[in-house]
Amino acid sequence: MMTLSLIGIGCGDPGQLTRAAIQAVNAADLILIPRKGTAKSDLADLRRTICADVLRIAEFDLPVRDAGEADYRKSVDDWHDAVAAAWSQTIADHIGTEGRVALLIWGDPSLYDSSLRIARRLNPLPKIEVVPGITSIQALCAAHALPLNDIGEPFLVTTGRRLREGGWPEGVDTVVVMLDGGTAFQSLDPDGIHIWWGAYLGMPDQIIISGALAEMGPRIVATRQDARKRHGWIMDSYILKRRPEARQHAP
Amino acid sequence: MMTLSLIGIGCGDPGQLTRAAIQAVNAADLILIPRKGTAKSDLADLRRTICADVLRIAEFDLPVRDAGEADYRKSVDDWHDAVAAAWSQTIADHIGTEGRVALLIWGDPSLYDSSLRIARRLNPLPKIEVVPGITSIQALCAAHALPLNDIGEPFLVTTGRRLREGGWPEGVDTVVVMLDGGTAFQSLDPDGIHIWWGAYLGMPDQIIISGALAEMGPRIVATRQDARKRHGWIMDSYILKRRPEARQHAP
Repeated sequence: MMTLSLIGIGCGDPGQLTRAAIQAVNAADLILIPRKGTAKSDLADLRRTICADVLRIAEFDLPVRDAGEADYRKSVDDWHDAVAAAWSQTIADHIGTEGRVALLIWGDPSLYDSSLRIARRLNPLPKIEVVPGITSIQALCAAHALPLNDIGEPFLVTTGRRLREGGWPEGVDTVVVMLDGGTAFQSLDPDGIHIWWGAYLGMPDQIIISGALAEMGPRIVATRQDARKRHGWIMDSYILKRRPEARQHAP
Repeated sequence: MMTLSLIGIGCGDPGQLTRAAIQAVNAADLILIPRKGTAKSDLADLRRTICADVLRIAEFDLPVRDAGEADYRKSVDDWHDAVAAAWSQTIADHIGTEGRVALLIWGDPSLYDSSLRIARRLNPLPKIEVVPGITSIQALCAAHALPLNDIGEPFLVTTGRRLREGGWPEGVDTVVVMLDGGTAFQSLDPDGIHIWWGAYLGMPDQIIISGALAEMGPRIVATRQDARKRHGWIMDSYILKRRPEARQHAP
């Protein structure tokens, strides 16, 4: 029997590793490391922090999604098949059909990550284990010492594309924006909206900015551009709240 | 200067403790432990796991919210003042005005927890640090090996009361329900809805149930009743998805 552990490792700060994550990494017979462009050296650093006892590490080339395919869902579907095939081959080459394989996932395997969907396509299907990890949402709230929800109130987690296309969502005053390759908050009327933004969360280069969107929006756009140029890449996320003071000072 | 660390300790499984949480606990001059009814012995167990090096632990009686106050917001407001006063007094009695104080928080201090709001009422205001922790949402997804969001789709996190009063929320197909003292999912037409439910997540007595709400709803109600009677208390949460298969098999 094969066990596949999808291990959330937080978003870059080794302090975010849980005891269970460290234990699962150390119990693995093989660790799969996808080779892809950016952030590779960070991952290598993190590996050095936690993989001291692990002997077998297998790197493999991560297949690339066909950007020429017009049907987005089909392109994702085909890509997941290709990734599953790459995992299967790498596992078979290194440890055959039995043992414990670990895959390290930035953040938490359940949040905006496809590894669980890909794992279900493996043949034969392994026993799948998930070890939760600290997400960038949590690192963002921690950095700002910000309560995510208002008392007893809901919040929505959505994507940059959704915010850009749909505007402020119905029925909520708190919105978390993930996967925003740009600055979708610029599509909103900033009046009455506050933003809590962060990049490189939990890393030594962490940057955070918060305040009224009207004032801080342009500053975030400029800071983001500058940081991206300096680092060659950027990972950021943000939380928006409507009328936060009004709510807080309500009787 | 006083530093107050709000430390997320996950939801009961010591494996969910992060390195940063363990470090913050061990760096504290004083740990505040509120004395309140249930789950006290679990917290004591967890303390034994992580507090080996900490010498000073101060227990204090947690004030009780005035349930007789008609204005809910005012009763919460007054209660937060009372809790802040209890923290201040306990800190002053034990270590005076300087040092590092730690407060252990189930889950993550940013999610449906008022400690951050209470901390801001301390006088003098300490430096506030937040250490994120694994939440019950993450433990629930991990237990079910469930991707929380559908690909590129948003999700809403809300409360049992909101779901009961407002029905299925606009604009989302995935809903996470927290703070449901009962079984608010019973207020929904179960047709086409799937549920992933869990209680005592991450603990040895963890129970999980998933499937079509029409079929699993009654089973969860019965299981919950039974477990609550056996343990004397229950902590549970659940995720609802509309038409999950339809979405998954979409082209």
